[in-house]
Amino acid sequence: MADQEVRTRRGGRSGNKRRDRATAITQMPWSLPINLDKPTEPLDEEGVAAIHNGAMRVLEEIGIEFLNPESTAILKAAGCTVSGENVRMDRDFVMEKVGLAPNQFTITPRNPDRKIIIGGKHIVFGSVSSPPNCSDLDRGRRIGDRESFRDFLKLCQYFNCIHFTGGYAVEPMDIHPSVRHLECLYDKLILTDKVVHAYSLGKERVEDVMEMARIAAGLSHEEFDASPHMYTNINSTSPLKHDYPMLDGAMRLARRGQPVVVTPFTLAGAMAPVTMSGAVMQSIAEGLAAIVLLQCINPGTPVVLGTFTSNVDMKTGAPAFGTPDYMRATQMTGQMARYYGLPLRSSNACAANCPDSQAAWESAFSLWACLSSGTNKVYHGAGWLEGGLCASYEKFIMDCETIQQMIAYMQPITINEDELGFEAIKEVGHGGHFFGVQHTQDRYETAFYSPFLSDWSNFENWEDRGAVRTPERANKIWKAILEEFVPPPMDPAIDEELQAFVAKRKEEGGAPTDF
Amino acid sequence: MADQEVRTRRGGRSGNKRRDRATAITQMPWSLPINLDKPTEPLDEEGVAAIHNGAMRVLEEIGIEFLNPESTAILKAAGCTVSGENVRMDRDFVMEKVGLAPNQFTITPRNPDRKIIIGGKHIVFGSVSSPPNCSDLDRGRRIGDRESFRDFLKLCQYFNCIHFTGGYAVEPMDIHPSVRHLECLYDKLILTDKVVHAYSLGKERVEDVMEMARIAAGLSHEEFDASPHMYTNINSTSPLKHDYPMLDGAMRLARRGQPVVVTPFTLAGAMAPVTMSGAVMQSIAEGLAAIVLLQCINPGTPVVLGTFTSNVDMKTGAPAFGTPDYMRATQMTGQMARYYGLPLRSSNACAANCPDSQAAWESAFSLWACLSSGTNKVYHGAGWLEGGLCASYEKFIMDCETIQQMIAYMQPITINEDELGFEAIKEVGHGGHFFGVQHTQDRYETAFYSPFLSDWSNFENWEDRGAVRTPERANKIWKAILEEFVPPPMDPAIDEELQAFVAKRKEEGGAPTDF
Repeated sequence: MADQEVRTRRGGRSGNKRRDRATAITQMPWSLPINLDKPTEPLDEEGVAAIHNGAMRVLEEIGIEFLNPESTAILKAAGCTVSGENVRMDRDFVMEKVGLAPNQFTITPRNPDRKIIIGGKHIVFGSVSSPPNCSDLDRGRRIGDRESFRDFLKLCQYFNCIHFTGGYAVEPMDIHPSVRHLECLYDKLILTDKVVHAYSLGKERVEDVMEMARIAAGLSHEEFDASPHMYTNINSTSPLKHDYPMLDGAMRLARRGQPVVVTPFTLAGAMAPVTMSGAVMQSIAEGLAAIVLLQCINPGTPVVLGTFTSNVDMKTGAPAFGTPDYMRATQMTGQMARYYGLPLRSSNACAANCPDSQAAWESAFSLWACLSSGTNKVYHGAGWLEGGLCASYEKFIMDCETIQQMIAYMQPITINEDELGFEAIKEVGHGGHFFGVQHTQDRYETAFYSPFLSDWSNFENWEDRGAVRTPERANKIWKAILEEFVPPPMDPAIDEELQAFVAKRKEEGGAPTDF
Repeated sequence: MADQEVRTRRGGRSGNKRRDRATAITQMPWSLPINLDKPTEPLDEEGVAAIHNGAMRVLEEIGIEFLNPESTAILKAAGCTVSGENVRMDRDFVMEKVGLAPNQFTITPRNPDRKIIIGGKHIVFGSVSSPPNCSDLDRGRRIGDRESFRDFLKLCQYFNCIHFTGGYAVEPMDIHPSVRHLECLYDKLILTDKVVHAYSLGKERVEDVMEMARIAAGLSHEEFDASPHMYTNINSTSPLKHDYPMLDGAMRLARRGQPVVVTPFTLAGAMAPVTMSGAVMQSIAEGLAAIVLLQCINPGTPVVLGTFTSNVDMKTGAPAFGTPDYMRATQMTGQMARYYGLPLRSSNACAANCPDSQAAWESAFSLWACLSSGTNKVYHGAGWLEGGLCASYEKFIMDCETIQQMIAYMQPITINEDELGFEAIKEVGHGGHFFGVQHTQDRYETAFYSPFLSDWSNFENWEDRGAVRTPERANKIWKAILEEFVPPPMDPAIDEELQAFVAKRKEEGGAPTDF
């Protein structure tokens, strides 16, 4: 296991000693959770049919704009009705192409033990992606920088309940945008061994990330292209548009068999109809349109249908997350994803501005929406605040606690004579307690989920220890984790190759910044 | 509507003026929510059968102790095997008696508009019950007193999402126990017009509460006995015992057709087997035993199967709530309740010591357990902290916000051509937004749930307004509510009759305090 034998990088990259497993907290082992509960389905069969029919009518009668000439050419060649940037496609064609996408696939990062499965009954969690700001209780809220970016990578690597990395957990604004992706991917590949993500923001960024992920995994180009090793996420420009760089990036990945998550960003009442069902319908149309394109390019390309449908505060227009409407939109999209045989992505989102009670209940609502919708890939799983504008160190820890609890919740329940403990009940009878009986002794260490952040002590003990609230406890934990963090092992030759690639590409100027 | 025309009691009971609807917050109207989602069922058919079989074996082979001679005499006469206090009953008898209990019933308080339905797809929420302590941000944590007790009654009456009162939201320790029930019920019946509860702590308390509920509703004894007007909740003394006063109170209510919630308190690993399934099995045996007794006394007595099965922290023995194990136990009990055709009670519980993020996620987990288990009656719905040892003013407000959100979540989703908004999508096309279109204008005021406590503003606005965290916002809200509180109208003649009853019973000494 990568956790047991690690090479420390503290004191410079040349440092090399073995350490025991981290001790800042006792956490769950790495696992790929399986969500066996039946999803919650707010739509009946007619409802699913109505949303499908509406989405197909959008694709047939209104069309989606593809702001990328290559994509329109491909779709035209495939038989779509193309008029300038607008593409209309009929439902039989859509269903045929969508049917080519796999229901489940794997992504294998540089450490094969950190392979993830996307689809079926599986659910995996990733870190927050792309906030421009970060915050912690000591330093307050500030513009993201490389140090914070690295801190979040370390947290992401540390927690076994975080299965993959998203986009930058915080945008390192102190690195020039032309070379940011190079520096960031290098950090990511050194500090984590989990699945990485590429931003679809211009061909250089996408190609560089694929190349670096390939080098880090020690694969030939053929080996890399043979199965998924990283992924991208693209958003539509709602209503009804896909923009140039997103399409470009998605097409580049599709050609190399790498997975694309397609996530329309449809805020009901703003970029989509004010009804959640209407917003879901539009989101489905936008999502499927891009998925069709990718299947035309490379039939069988692994894709994920994403949902980012929520409501706005109609008084201010501000987006809201983790709301009842958000939950229902996520569940409805889950029904549609299963109807199309596609894996589902949703998010652990909230609107709260600090890691307080509102943040906790909004995130709990979002996470229950993930579980109850049959979500396969949870984006923004840990650390998100402010509708995605801030990555919070403390919130990251809080989210890992609740994600762990949900993973514990997903453990299958075993019912048999021995588990039920009739004999123990008989033994204890009408007096006494169960602490001492063998049935308890055999199981008590693992019987229940044991939290690392929740404080279950009584009020007096809690007060004696300083009445420390959750965010303050989380603050201590992330510091302890960063203090003892040890990066995953990496072959020095590969490290050198990565460094050389970054140096070369920086010399070449990196990527254009005119996007 | 009781909300529209009320008699103020501010400035003494003689005050009498009409006021407009309260304005501290904009809340949802009173409604009886219907939970249309399919419950989450962790057990398969064999699992349900195994727990049922185990519970029946407990009743057949081990037996339950009934520490009340009247109850054992009744059960003996009904054919049970009674040996001292231990009662064994065979499964056919149990199933026959349990089958007499209704699947659904109503409870009508003094204001018939506040009638609640218990069972079927209905779910109703009550306030926290029985903590000895209360707390708020200004005064900290303190022993409960009558003023705080009254404050919680006012909050309970104010919020339309709170459908019934539980036991005392905080124990008023400054009222002598012999007369506490009289003073408290008077306060409750004056400050609220919702369903009230009687503690099963001796015959005087139970009989007095029934009498006062009858007087407050202006009913004859016959009218009162004809249908449910209040209820009690009894707990078993796990393992496998029912104590004297609980049984006495339950039997008194059963004779008068008043509902009894039977809630075994089975902490897995302490008073029940360390496995959640085993603890549920024991809980079912204990619960059904009491329900059988009540059906022997008065066939068709409305009863509710309660669950209070959770886990303990195996390091300290401290009870934990809102945990993954707690959720599964609640869902399993829900399956068993449906198997027996009984309504289900569970709780909004948490272990947190202050209304922070942990309190919020634990309560969110508990509330989602309520919804996903098919719970019909949510006890401790608002205000609970510290495993039930403290009633928090701020937590009450937070819980009402999340309960409102869950009620909004339960609104059925309408799917039709008009709702889906295909024409609006066509109208907006590929540019612009949906704010201005008629489809939005027709719906925007009611399209989404609108919170009263959540702050959805952006960080800058939130910071400009003082960066107020959730508990501090809740603090302002409960003060505003108490400030403008107006009690529900009551006929002065009934008020006088209640006062006279309380005075007479106090003169008689109230209830013995040797329990």
